[in-house]
Amino acid sequence: MDNDALQSMNWRERLYVIIFFTNTPAGRRFDTWLLVVIFASLVVVMFDSIAHYSERYGLLLDGLEWLFTGIFLVEYLVRIYCHPEPRKYVFSFYGAIDLLSVVPAFIALLLPDAEYLLVVRAIRMLRVFRVLKLTQYLSQANFLLVALRGSKQKIIVFLLSVTTMVLVYGTLMYVIEGPANGFTSIPMSIYWAVVTITTVGFGDIVPVTPLGKAVATLVMITGYSIIAVPTGIFTAELATAMRADSLQHRCPTCEKLTHEPNAAFCSRCGSQLFRQADRDPQA
Amino acid sequence: MDNDALQSMNWRERLYVIIFFTNTPAGRRFDTWLLVVIFASLVVVMFDSIAHYSERYGLLLDGLEWLFTGIFLVEYLVRIYCHPEPRKYVFSFYGAIDLLSVVPAFIALLLPDAEYLLVVRAIRMLRVFRVLKLTQYLSQANFLLVALRGSKQKIIVFLLSVTTMVLVYGTLMYVIEGPANGFTSIPMSIYWAVVTITTVGFGDIVPVTPLGKAVATLVMITGYSIIAVPTGIFTAELATAMRADSLQHRCPTCEKLTHEPNAAFCSRCGSQLFRQADRDPQA
Amino acid sequence: MDNDALQSMNWRERLYVIIFFTNTPAGRRFDTWLLVVIFASLVVVMFDSIAHYSERYGLLLDGLEWLFTGIFLVEYLVRIYCHPEPRKYVFSFYGAIDLLSVVPAFIALLLPDAEYLLVVRAIRMLRVFRVLKLTQYLSQANFLLVALRGSKQKIIVFLLSVTTMVLVYGTLMYVIEGPANGFTSIPMSIYWAVVTITTVGFGDIVPVTPLGKAVATLVMITGYSIIAVPTGIFTAELATAMRADSLQHRCPTCEKLTHEPNAAFCSRCGSQLFRQADRDPQA
Amino acid sequence: MDNDALQSMNWRERLYVIIFFTNTPAGRRFDTWLLVVIFASLVVVMFDSIAHYSERYGLLLDGLEWLFTGIFLVEYLVRIYCHPEPRKYVFSFYGAIDLLSVVPAFIALLLPDAEYLLVVRAIRMLRVFRVLKLTQYLSQANFLLVALRGSKQKIIVFLLSVTTMVLVYGTLMYVIEGPANGFTSIPMSIYWAVVTITTVGFGDIVPVTPLGKAVATLVMITGYSIIAVPTGIFTAELATAMRADSLQHRCPTCEKLTHEPNAAFCSRCGSQLFRQADRDPQA
Repeated sequence: MDNDALQSMNWRERLYVIIFFTNTPAGRRFDTWLLVVIFASLVVVMFDSIAHYSERYGLLLDGLEWLFTGIFLVEYLVRIYCHPEPRKYVFSFYGAIDLLSVVPAFIALLLPDAEYLLVVRAIRMLRVFRVLKLTQYLSQANFLLVALRGSKQKIIVFLLSVTTMVLVYGTLMYVIEGPANGFTSIPMSIYWAVVTITTVGFGDIVPVTPLGKAVATLVMITGYSIIAVPTGIFTAELATAMRADSLQHRCPTCEKLTHEPNAAFCSRCGSQLFRQADRDPQA
Repeated sequence: MDNDALQSMNWRERLYVIIFFTNTPAGRRFDTWLLVVIFASLVVVMFDSIAHYSERYGLLLDGLEWLFTGIFLVEYLVRIYCHPEPRKYVFSFYGAIDLLSVVPAFIALLLPDAEYLLVVRAIRMLRVFRVLKLTQYLSQANFLLVALRGSKQKIIVFLLSVTTMVLVYGTLMYVIEGPANGFTSIPMSIYWAVVTITTVGFGDIVPVTPLGKAVATLVMITGYSIIAVPTGIFTAELATAMRADSLQHRCPTCEKLTHEPNAAFCSRCGSQLFRQADRDPQA
Repeated sequence: MDNDALQSMNWRERLYVIIFFTNTPAGRRFDTWLLVVIFASLVVVMFDSIAHYSERYGLLLDGLEWLFTGIFLVEYLVRIYCHPEPRKYVFSFYGAIDLLSVVPAFIALLLPDAEYLLVVRAIRMLRVFRVLKLTQYLSQANFLLVALRGSKQKIIVFLLSVTTMVLVYGTLMYVIEGPANGFTSIPMSIYWAVVTITTVGFGDIVPVTPLGKAVATLVMITGYSIIAVPTGIFTAELATAMRADSLQHRCPTCEKLTHEPNAAFCSRCGSQLFRQADRDPQA
Repeated sequence: MDNDALQSMNWRERLYVIIFFTNTPAGRRFDTWLLVVIFASLVVVMFDSIAHYSERYGLLLDGLEWLFTGIFLVEYLVRIYCHPEPRKYVFSFYGAIDLLSVVPAFIALLLPDAEYLLVVRAIRMLRVFRVLKLTQYLSQANFLLVALRGSKQKIIVFLLSVTTMVLVYGTLMYVIEGPANGFTSIPMSIYWAVVTITTVGFGDIVPVTPLGKAVATLVMITGYSIIAVPTGIFTAELATAMRADSLQHRCPTCEKLTHEPNAAFCSRCGSQLFRQADRDPQA
């Protein structure tokens, strides 16, 4: 969008284009500054949680939080003001995220010790996705989604199997090791089974008895083996999705998009296709 | 199956359809409630194992366990009553699982301290697979099984190699580090080798001597490298299985065997193929 | 091989067939018993290393070790006696392994405290591969080897990069954390870097300073990312090797074995191939 | 390059060929010795960091460091002298690495306690890549780069998602567990989240409260699941890159683009193809 087009709009439309789109120099500058403010506010959240800094610079950090809240508030109001359908914006996903960037500071006035507000403040990170206008990446994310959706059923079977395994192994270890060795309850043993099967292995609870170690060996080898399953499922689906994309070859008669690498005739209507050689050389 | 068909059956046939199948509204309601009861009984098993709750609410938890056992017992007897071939049901896999849901409470009357009954109670989880009537997922699980069967021999060679490696590395570490550094016996060292090769790394036993650390480095790099092997085997087999399935479709004219999933015409000779819809709708 | 063929041989030839081959009932029985003896001798090695058992049953375990050594010695001598080319057998890989099964007990007479003999005794495990006559799996192992050989160069580049990374990260952490926090020397820091990059994470050495933790975060994310590289390389090579195999289609003129799925003419000599449909339906 | 061609050059040209190239016997000998010196200097760096050795053999190690610095200095000056465009060499990547091999010893004279020089000394490892003249591996590394570049956008989306997840999980655990249980600040909690999601699991910080353990279970299962994503992306891209490369070979008659690696005749029309040998011998 060139600058002249921008000049011919009124003030509110111009704001809308600058704030919500990225194809003007002003829009790009706005996005850059917003990104800086978001990261700065996240840095403040982090420093505020470090006792050393919050004790010494508490006032400064509070001031900065109020400054950023002010900026986000103004931004939020301007977004509502200039959006052609304000209601739609407010109830959109990003509209909610934008509101959540502003709310915590005000709630903190009423409930000064509400620590869970920190989580709300951390959610500001989600705004980065919007600011980066990741539409160019959406076709990529789409690939991932197609691959994930294609493997949905396989993944449900896989997750149910893992859940059953974790439950049975957890109960087994609780019976074998018992509360004396740290396996104080079945949920605790399930936590241990998850820590072990995912190969995280914190080491806060470990089997002590020989039988417990033998079962643990079995759990580990199982975990090691099944890590191959979701990777394999996902890779195979992704490869299929990518191949399907690379095979796209529009039929001149029926507009069917995808065909086999060596197809000479459209597989839907039977009309002849252009020679393979006329197309992308990567079959 | 519509309601009229259900009305025309006698009481026992109707029960059979409701309990064993999922294609009636009543059957779906039955399954939902059974699922709720199974998960509730598993939750009771877990709370019963937490000292804090079992001390305070022991009577309530025992009562609930008897309630769920009663429900499962009634369900088990009804299943036997309404099944056309009761004997076949009783000796089927799910028949055994259903019986195992009922048994522990009664054995506990005779042997009140039999902790291993907990494991039997946890096995109830397997009933979820039946209740969810995972037949729709079976074609998916089938894929996984085909992939696993196709890679069976490769996996046996792989497992034998890993076993040998674990045995030799374990013995080596026992000789190098010795009982003083926690490697108290060869089985213990093998346990350490499995913990390390699977990248779990609890940290309850760690090498202390420089030579031991050098060998441990070797073990870790080996483990890191061979994790690629089962993943690679499984992925390649799965991709082959998926491609083979999605492509099989013989052309009646030119005998070309493989076509695209939705092909209506042969891509080599242009003659019409059988309707895709006549085949498996998944493809 | 039927029993009559076996009857017509002399005693030595018969022994050779029974001991070295698996296609006679006697040969299969011999292999089963040998497998049992090998595993029993490995179990003795393990129990001998557990203080509890070696103190109480030391004499019994020593006796069993001598018994197994005797069996292996007799087997070794019989193998030499009945092999048509004894010298070739003695200097073959399995000949050496067979000898190593016998030697430790005798060396232990001279050097009673030589603990490293345990490793030699553990190497007996390798005999399992021979006894199982894994020739049927060789074609499978061959696949793995083809895949590994095909990715050899990629793997060398990968390993050199990982080595450099481990060296630089290790030195960096040594400088940042220093001996006070457990990073007592550069080799020790390299050990930590390997433990971290391979995601084993023992936790015996952990970063303590904030800067050290930041660098550790970087190390972990790097390790997490590069785990994809060898898996990807190996899987892609394996898939290629498997596809190459599945495409095998012998040309009637020039005997060329592998062709493309849809090949109508041999790609080496240009003569016509049999129709695709006459072959294995899985293209 | 044969020896006669080398004889006909002047002294400086001959040096250039020997030092910068690998296709003369002298050049190969030079590279071997340089490799030995580089590894020896890295070994000295390591021993120098072990208190036990640096106390006892400090003088020897310092002497060796000066010896190696001298060798590298002479080599650096000779490289500048014999290179046809010295300026280009000095400002090249490897020119900078070569200079960095010499500098630390001299800076250490001025700042004897500058420990960070160790990192500079470890960077010498990068010279191995040059000495090994990894040009033969470049086509392989190229594959990896193509695969990485192809998956760049997918990887950015993936990394941003992981960053957001780590930030939100870290803040959540800080709020749940708090400083009393080791989660002393949000950055510390983020460090824990990274340790957990990458399945490293040091165990220096672990959740203590039941709610914290439940969230940790979620974090671990998330980490376990998403490990499949980069592996899948990379493998699929790599497989595509490898297939594309191995197949490109245009038939002069029917314009068919893709053929088998060693095809001499087109598999569609049977006409002769250019010799495979005229192309890249790898294929």
